[in-house]
Amino acid sequence: MSVYEESLKLHIENKGKIEVISKVSVKTKEDLSLAYSPGVAEPCKKIAANKNDVYKYTAKGNMVAVITDGTAVLGLGDIGPEAALPVMEGKAILFKEFGGVDAFPICLDTKDTEEIIRTCKLLAPSFGGINLEDIAAPKCVEIERRLIEELDIPVFHDDQHGTAIVTTAAVINSCKLLGKNISDLRVSMIGTGSAGSSIARMLKGLGVKSLYAYNSKGVVMQDKYDKYRFLVKELLDQNIIDTPENLEEDSVAGMMKGTDVFVGVSGPDMVTKDMVRSMNTDPIILAMANPTPEIMPEDALEAGAAVVGTGRSDYPNQVNNVLAFPGLFKGALEAGATVINDEMKIAAAYGIANVLKEEELRADYIIPSPFDERVASVVAETVKKIAIENNLIRKQ
Amino acid sequence: MSVYEESLKLHIENKGKIEVISKVSVKTKEDLSLAYSPGVAEPCKKIAANKNDVYKYTAKGNMVAVITDGTAVLGLGDIGPEAALPVMEGKAILFKEFGGVDAFPICLDTKDTEEIIRTCKLLAPSFGGINLEDIAAPKCVEIERRLIEELDIPVFHDDQHGTAIVTTAAVINSCKLLGKNISDLRVSMIGTGSAGSSIARMLKGLGVKSLYAYNSKGVVMQDKYDKYRFLVKELLDQNIIDTPENLEEDSVAGMMKGTDVFVGVSGPDMVTKDMVRSMNTDPIILAMANPTPEIMPEDALEAGAAVVGTGRSDYPNQVNNVLAFPGLFKGALEAGATVINDEMKIAAAYGIANVLKEEELRADYIIPSPFDERVASVVAETVKKIAIENNLIRKQ
Repeated sequence: MSVYEESLKLHIENKGKIEVISKVSVKTKEDLSLAYSPGVAEPCKKIAANKNDVYKYTAKGNMVAVITDGTAVLGLGDIGPEAALPVMEGKAILFKEFGGVDAFPICLDTKDTEEIIRTCKLLAPSFGGINLEDIAAPKCVEIERRLIEELDIPVFHDDQHGTAIVTTAAVINSCKLLGKNISDLRVSMIGTGSAGSSIARMLKGLGVKSLYAYNSKGVVMQDKYDKYRFLVKELLDQNIIDTPENLEEDSVAGMMKGTDVFVGVSGPDMVTKDMVRSMNTDPIILAMANPTPEIMPEDALEAGAAVVGTGRSDYPNQVNNVLAFPGLFKGALEAGATVINDEMKIAAAYGIANVLKEEELRADYIIPSPFDERVASVVAETVKKIAIENNLIRKQ
Repeated sequence: MSVYEESLKLHIENKGKIEVISKVSVKTKEDLSLAYSPGVAEPCKKIAANKNDVYKYTAKGNMVAVITDGTAVLGLGDIGPEAALPVMEGKAILFKEFGGVDAFPICLDTKDTEEIIRTCKLLAPSFGGINLEDIAAPKCVEIERRLIEELDIPVFHDDQHGTAIVTTAAVINSCKLLGKNISDLRVSMIGTGSAGSSIARMLKGLGVKSLYAYNSKGVVMQDKYDKYRFLVKELLDQNIIDTPENLEEDSVAGMMKGTDVFVGVSGPDMVTKDMVRSMNTDPIILAMANPTPEIMPEDALEAGAAVVGTGRSDYPNQVNNVLAFPGLFKGALEAGATVINDEMKIAAAYGIANVLKEEELRADYIIPSPFDERVASVVAETVKKIAIENNLIRKQ
């Protein structure tokens, strides 16, 4: 049986993947009088008197809404809210299994940006955080920004930042292993959509020297400013994407020449062995197109790559979001954070990187396994510390 | 420690009462490839091709949203969505513990009727049913009706119909015990709000001969038509509430004289012993004001009541909603019902009543205990049968 047939069987036999259970006993009249009427009136009154007490007496503080409109699901595209539900249930159980965070899937029957924003705000009382998922670009960016601004609970769009955090972790550990300085790195990347723009932002935030990008209009540069959508314009305006100075050719090959790191969030076979050979010594290749990377790991290694990572579980160094979001939310929720900001995302990247001790690092082991039990708690502690230090937590 | 202090302790120690867990294993790379990427793409595709398959591959079919705006919580009134959350979590665990139905609390940060309706519709893809809870009258009636009309999943407002179903069960079993015919019964009731109007509707649907009601305007009658809000007008128009023919006095005493059943959903001490004495032989008293009934059971019995029920757990015959909603939703969901209609509610009442065999019935045991394990499954089977017989189920 294929993985697809087996997956269907698993879903049918279990009637989906989540259930909602009680943490308290409800077996006797006494139980009922504490968990429900009349006793429950007391926590209600306390919260009515002080709204913040909702974190004390309810499950809100550890409950994340996984919210989608079903417009950009996996590689399947706009398949609608019902068809997105298996993915959202999957995400919810990953939150619980990897981070101990409760999560509930919400698939909205609207594609309207304003209506999605408004609905998230109306739902906020029940939730300690919102994980936006599989919402099409560019509206996902607008939705996330508005909600971060308008809500006092952490809001995070995993498709933008999840990959970015793990990619950043991979760059940190590659530098450790290869003895490179982050501040000397020149990065080339393909893809400037929601994931690509977040990766660019985080790597620049990490402190890389320069960063070039390639998209459907060729190498990104100031000369073509008017051709871009707002995401790329913003990245140019903010000096996140740099315009290459002595570009010989407006091509992937031209951009990659002499750079230290390649990051791909585009499509299959965009990069050749010659391009890898044209990079600086000990190049770092993170080719994350799925299922076929920009260049296959064996080819990249043959061409002299010092480290190769992909999105695939059947190769070493898998850049897998599950390394980031469970611990990131766990830390934010434990801290009582009102936001997940750039510093906290960078902290999460360092958390993931630091799970592997220097002596554990190898070219084929710069990213911990998703099943490494250290990951979520180390990430959570790192994120929590930054949130508290920067006073990003709610007032009591 | 009081029940209130103990309840606070329980809520703090457990950080609320619900958690969301996985029904499938996520321990290995293989597990992950079935529950999440890449395998999960397959159920997604199936549902995209046939929306009804969402019931086959996800938890939707057994998942109820418990939705409130926090405007009429317990006896506490409009305490807001955050303060309502302990009650909604409580409701959710009762669904699970008593009916095996998964339920999730949604507390909405709006009081606007249209916005509540719209949000419920946007949330529908993730849920198999909606239980509206603690929403103020009269908007709760409008919201429920519109959602029943506009959604293809069961929608049920427990504050309206939960008490009505259990009250109806109590009347059925009292008649059995006392050898009365339902079609001969004359009923008097106090309270014509959301619960009262649903009780009136159900008892008339059950087939009682006549039904009189009392509210803030006195005994309800055609003469005062212009004084009423739409709920009472409708009940008069539809001959649910009858105008007493030879009323000697426009008072509770006047209304109750000669009736067989008294139903109270009003306030404390509205009924005297003399009023009970003025009723027909073997009167049935269901005095459900909480915490102090319209007449205390000992007083009603002393005045000759044959059967007394209240809303309290410390007296016999507790009219407790938990007898109704878990089995009702269980049955509706198992049938694949698109609605919970009046026949299904009456079926639920007969289900609750029939849990007690004739030889079990006593004056102080006409309603089964909330902890009687037979209840939910008997109610579910009865409701399911009616839904299927009346073809109230979704097309495949």
